[in-house]
Amino acid sequence: MASSSELPALDVNHCREAHRRIAPYVHATPVLTCATLDALAGARLYFKAEHLQKSGSFKFRGASNAILTLSPEQAKRGVATHSSGNHAQALALAAGLQNISAHVVMPSDSSPAKIAAAKSYGAKITICQATLEARESALNEVLAQTGATFIHPYDDPRIIAGQATAFLELREQAPALDVVIAPVGGGGLLSGTAIAAGASQPTIRVWGAEPELAGDAHQSLKTGVRQLPLPPITLADGLRTGLGVTTFPIIKQRVERIVLVSETEILHAMQLLWERAKFVVEPSGAVPLAAVLAAKSELRGKTVGIILSGGNVATEEMIQMAWGERESVRA
Amino acid sequence: MASSSELPALDVNHCREAHRRIAPYVHATPVLTCATLDALAGARLYFKAEHLQKSGSFKFRGASNAILTLSPEQAKRGVATHSSGNHAQALALAAGLQNISAHVVMPSDSSPAKIAAAKSYGAKITICQATLEARESALNEVLAQTGATFIHPYDDPRIIAGQATAFLELREQAPALDVVIAPVGGGGLLSGTAIAAGASQPTIRVWGAEPELAGDAHQSLKTGVRQLPLPPITLADGLRTGLGVTTFPIIKQRVERIVLVSETEILHAMQLLWERAKFVVEPSGAVPLAAVLAAKSELRGKTVGIILSGGNVATEEMIQMAWGERESVRA
Repeated sequence: MASSSELPALDVNHCREAHRRIAPYVHATPVLTCATLDALAGARLYFKAEHLQKSGSFKFRGASNAILTLSPEQAKRGVATHSSGNHAQALALAAGLQNISAHVVMPSDSSPAKIAAAKSYGAKITICQATLEARESALNEVLAQTGATFIHPYDDPRIIAGQATAFLELREQAPALDVVIAPVGGGGLLSGTAIAAGASQPTIRVWGAEPELAGDAHQSLKTGVRQLPLPPITLADGLRTGLGVTTFPIIKQRVERIVLVSETEILHAMQLLWERAKFVVEPSGAVPLAAVLAAKSELRGKTVGIILSGGNVATEEMIQMAWGERESVRA
Repeated sequence: MASSSELPALDVNHCREAHRRIAPYVHATPVLTCATLDALAGARLYFKAEHLQKSGSFKFRGASNAILTLSPEQAKRGVATHSSGNHAQALALAAGLQNISAHVVMPSDSSPAKIAAAKSYGAKITICQATLEARESALNEVLAQTGATFIHPYDDPRIIAGQATAFLELREQAPALDVVIAPVGGGGLLSGTAIAAGASQPTIRVWGAEPELAGDAHQSLKTGVRQLPLPPITLADGLRTGLGVTTFPIIKQRVERIVLVSETEILHAMQLLWERAKFVVEPSGAVPLAAVLAAKSELRGKTVGIILSGGNVATEEMIQMAWGERESVRA
């Protein structure tokens, strides 16, 4: 695979091309509003509902763009990645829809629900030990055996251009925004949002939202030097990775600030989204609303776009805990 | 208040008038689809997302219509009802938006979350003992003291016409439907849906969906005689009431069948809606999907409308149980 330095610099035209390319396959997700959350935030909030995207997250956009730009020879040999999360599901589904094989290396501590989801989308799963070394070595073995193309979860211009398409839609669906906020883990969604926002609505301010416990992007922006990821302990499991060599320069250039939020603030925002807005979002998806509430004084009266990144959570156990005991009354 | 027999028979024109009346105040909720659920059901499902309605359920439609048809004298004296559920919240919010007082009698075993919600919408709450006698006597006292107008949760033509407006919107938002399914408790939503569907799309079949443990409507339709409600034990707490004198004749005339579902089927449908479609629905809101899956063989290949009635559940405890333990890692 070409490394990012050999590829032309990414601009909004790549994002628009990506949008034309993937539009027949992705959901143009709705933009939703909630009067209660507006009142709480003291701002007008427009939620881009990527939890309703195919495979349950925005990752399906970038994965679809990567899949649809493969050469026929590459397509024949399939794609591969290592991931325990939404990228695995998204790549499996995007590949499956084009009859392309997807090989996914998943660590043995991945949740059974996520392994089952990737399998149900048709991926060939390789389980490996839960270390980065084991993941990379298992992936290299798969690549050598199959000749598949490695699709990185975020540090790839095709992925970034794909993730940018959520903002391109949001811009058409909502009034002019003062600020747009996306969560930041590896930075694929945030860098794509920044490119699309900067070019299509120049006065807009682009913010990232990040858990304190995974605050490497905040620190990278502050120091100007890309920091290593922190230990993967935040409950926002989609945001535990560090910025990439491709995403960091874009974020450095175009993102005004990254708001840090505590684990308690993430849980509170998640509960508000579930209970008041009725959106099943995962913890990572609640991080931007947590940031809005944390930065409330600066956002008062503003029009704010929020990318609700995903909704992949296992709910069986919690539904059973909350209501299951009633089953005892069944005849 | 006029009893239903003194009011003119309800037809679709009343429903259309209600729609014009309430449209400035209610959300025209989106119609959502989910490829995974379509595949599971073997049918095309169009979900009318009333869990995204103001106050969290379709009840806001009927309550708004009742509020907006009060005379100026009635409006000055306010409205009253007894309810432990969605009607209380809906009436409180609909009245509050018109600066009309709402008095709500709630039994002492109502969930603190529901009492808090009704209060937050500005209702004056009277707590009474958890028996029907205590509720009625507390309500009569409130009516005598205030001169407020009693707004019944379902057995009232203004309420039925208001609930019918969800179908009037659905019909414009989805392709021609073979079947439309609504949950049935007191029958306000189902009878309104039946009137609107029969008049605007005569070939459509109208089905109700009901918990086995609250199967009085099914039995009423079978025997032709309105049955008393069963003991209120189903987890679908919005569907524990029995049919009313106004709703039963409409349902008898226009509803083809009522599908019964078990408590396990309700929980399973609820989990599918949360986990696959990402909709926070309450147990009552999941009953129609449970019915679709129970009647799968008859619905194969059909286009089916589903009224997702509401999403009012308390999620704090379940979110804490699922993720809260991670808070221990906070600095």
